[in-house]
Amino acid sequence: MANTKSVPKEPKVELDFNNVMADILKSDQGLTIKEINKLKPEMTEAHKDLMQRRKNEELPFYDLPFQTQELKSIRRLADDIRKRTENFVVLGIGGSALGTRALFKALSPHNHNLLESSKRRFPRLFVVDNIDPETLTTLLNFVDPRHTFFNIVTKSGTTTETISQFMIVHDRLRRSLGRSSVRDHVIVTTDSKQGFMRELVNQEDYHALEVPEGVGGRFSVLSPVSLLPLAVTGINVVELLKGAVVASKACTHANMMRNPAYLFAALNFALRQWRKRSILVMMPYADALMDFAEWFNQLWAESLGKQYGIDGKEVLAGQTPVKALGATDQHSQLQLYMEGPEDKVVVFVGQKFYRVDTRIPSIFKENEGLAYLGGYTLGELIQTEQAATARALTMAGRPNMTLTIPRITPASMGYLMYLLEVAAVASGYLYKIDPFDQPGVELSKKFTYGLMGRPGFESFKEQFNRGNRPKKKYII
Amino acid sequence: MANTKSVPKEPKVELDFNNVMADILKSDQGLTIKEINKLKPEMTEAHKDLMQRRKNEELPFYDLPFQTQELKSIRRLADDIRKRTENFVVLGIGGSALGTRALFKALSPHNHNLLESSKRRFPRLFVVDNIDPETLTTLLNFVDPRHTFFNIVTKSGTTTETISQFMIVHDRLRRSLGRSSVRDHVIVTTDSKQGFMRELVNQEDYHALEVPEGVGGRFSVLSPVSLLPLAVTGINVVELLKGAVVASKACTHANMMRNPAYLFAALNFALRQWRKRSILVMMPYADALMDFAEWFNQLWAESLGKQYGIDGKEVLAGQTPVKALGATDQHSQLQLYMEGPEDKVVVFVGQKFYRVDTRIPSIFKENEGLAYLGGYTLGELIQTEQAATARALTMAGRPNMTLTIPRITPASMGYLMYLLEVAAVASGYLYKIDPFDQPGVELSKKFTYGLMGRPGFESFKEQFNRGNRPKKKYII
Repeated sequence: MANTKSVPKEPKVELDFNNVMADILKSDQGLTIKEINKLKPEMTEAHKDLMQRRKNEELPFYDLPFQTQELKSIRRLADDIRKRTENFVVLGIGGSALGTRALFKALSPHNHNLLESSKRRFPRLFVVDNIDPETLTTLLNFVDPRHTFFNIVTKSGTTTETISQFMIVHDRLRRSLGRSSVRDHVIVTTDSKQGFMRELVNQEDYHALEVPEGVGGRFSVLSPVSLLPLAVTGINVVELLKGAVVASKACTHANMMRNPAYLFAALNFALRQWRKRSILVMMPYADALMDFAEWFNQLWAESLGKQYGIDGKEVLAGQTPVKALGATDQHSQLQLYMEGPEDKVVVFVGQKFYRVDTRIPSIFKENEGLAYLGGYTLGELIQTEQAATARALTMAGRPNMTLTIPRITPASMGYLMYLLEVAAVASGYLYKIDPFDQPGVELSKKFTYGLMGRPGFESFKEQFNRGNRPKKKYII
Repeated sequence: MANTKSVPKEPKVELDFNNVMADILKSDQGLTIKEINKLKPEMTEAHKDLMQRRKNEELPFYDLPFQTQELKSIRRLADDIRKRTENFVVLGIGGSALGTRALFKALSPHNHNLLESSKRRFPRLFVVDNIDPETLTTLLNFVDPRHTFFNIVTKSGTTTETISQFMIVHDRLRRSLGRSSVRDHVIVTTDSKQGFMRELVNQEDYHALEVPEGVGGRFSVLSPVSLLPLAVTGINVVELLKGAVVASKACTHANMMRNPAYLFAALNFALRQWRKRSILVMMPYADALMDFAEWFNQLWAESLGKQYGIDGKEVLAGQTPVKALGATDQHSQLQLYMEGPEDKVVVFVGQKFYRVDTRIPSIFKENEGLAYLGGYTLGELIQTEQAATARALTMAGRPNMTLTIPRITPASMGYLMYLLEVAAVASGYLYKIDPFDQPGVELSKKFTYGLMGRPGFESFKEQFNRGNRPKKKYII
């Protein structure tokens, strides 16, 4: 099954949607071509509007793959940092962390951070995207500040979690290496003009990169946000962007049925609206793609999970993305997917070729129940399990589709992620919501500001306490 | 907020369900006490049946915490292994991996595996629960076979994935250290009588432990399945079981309103059946509990996701568990939880005290938007964010509840996991399904057997090809 064909030179993501179609599923849970075609006029309109906005430079994420000039300076900077450091620590949260982590996990050796310095060509990478005190404390005790670089990534320059981390790191560097040393161990990625971190960059003359204007966190994976840490850890960011350039051709095709991004959007929208598939299970069959699924989850959840449409009407839009991992979760989640509520579409992510593979030896021949495994590779086994699981879901009338990349490479990851970004944006048009905002996260932030005593947010503390205090009665 | 009270000596998990109640939520999305009370008669019946079955020794998972004799021999064995090895590798999948990984992540230092041998008191632990060729190949190239122990964990003794891994490991050990050495580097945890691995244990005189009869994978975390690897890596398994013993008292209380396991089951059942909360988001506010959420996901998905009730009628039962992580996912999933479809209940897991904490220094005082952070600890910040997020969801009419442990310790983890196991079983009674089976995973396995050429499964290969071949037309 595996490794019998030659690896194609161009990256390409294949979208197989046989198993969401009614004639294959043999179930009214599937879609008909007639239904899918109903979305064509809307998607064509969406396409026109998108291309116009792109032309007007209102959607700069579209053109991140073409930033060759910036790329050169990022690579030069990365070369310089790499020589001088053992550990590269990203302080960032949400979109400032997830893309970097996804690509590092996908493209670096699985044991990269475990290797001793002498066996490693590139610095260790740590992405600290939480304010869990144990994590940061443990890390700061572990790394030698002299051989550690910190990349503070916050577009707004005021993200509470990231700034808190930075305040602690700043203090540690100052105490251990002296105040003037902070500058030698810090690089800031933030807005080109606004925010506290930009002010500080100007004031302290820190090294800095820009988050391009108009590029939100969850669309920033192909920007300096991720490109610097990836380049530092030896990942071929040139190839990454090249893959996205190839994707940008496929994903700007006006015809929905020939554009994998639009088609992915349309299929999921149709399944959500007409077949109650409110859950999208993103299930790669590769350990290296586990964090890619986390990246996708933010993209899909935050872009599409909206209460109000652009016309102001309540819509309660969105699909809940769920991360699963094949083959592992066949022994954990598959029971639910096969037999539980009919509210899911499973999206498999497979690969045609593995970067390394291992053959199962022909031993235990006397045992009929095991001997058949001998001679296959693990790659063949996992691919067979993926196909078997897709088929089993299909037989159970459960819609599923498959995205297949040729092999996990920087180019194919660039292609895949670009495709899904365009799919998220296109979905926004179908739901008639704004895929670029996230108004729902503000209230929680304001309560935090109020409770922590940030000036100007006193009323939120009052509101918190008013609602919270009187009725704490349901506790056991 | 944090660290102001003294840590209680006994572990206890507090269940705060204020924010699922209609009078607090101020929304018809909430439950009334009257509704919850409707489940009391059923739960009382369930309790009687459970206690009877426990007495009849039909539900041995209930009594795993009391296995003091077995525990002694496991600890002795662990002491012996620990002295002789640098790396302890678990080969297992599903329930043979998830509990071990959850507790290792929760209870070992975050950087345990990164530490050099001289700075580490215990062996590294690797849990290989996938057949991804890259993972196993990389690991086997990384570890020195002379200083590595492999624990093969499969109850049935025939799990395809685990046996395939073992065949490769067996071959490597034989080639690198000689055939007779295999025995010195392998320990098998499997059924006491049945299956291929037990046969091999008898034949080759391997070291072996037993998966207690009648204990399924997802209920095996307090059995030798996890106890051995945890003991080897220095986790206090005595305290772990003690915590579960304390939980066993609380969780066998006949009155549902005083039994946190029954109440957790009842609340989620009521929200699922009467408020369409088909998704349970398990959201710990601690990096150490990330893998605990994975463990829970298997428990909840595989136990409750069932097509047919015990009476044979179609029910399509279950809630889809979703793992989230606070505070990180406030910048990823919270938008969807606040504004998307009203189909979720969020279960926060918090802690009252942190094992370590770090204070945010009082710097950047000239910036009003940041200065307020100075002086708080990260623990206080993350706890405040948790409270703020719970309050924001509540204000949006979105049900949520909170499980709070005193601190992450072996005892509190034992308590928490035991509680949730009982909750899963009790939920089975409410849904009227069998929480201990997983019939839905068989078809995928049979297709794999058929495609790989296992004798006796030829018809599944035919069935696979028949359905698969003719209509591969929906691909772009």
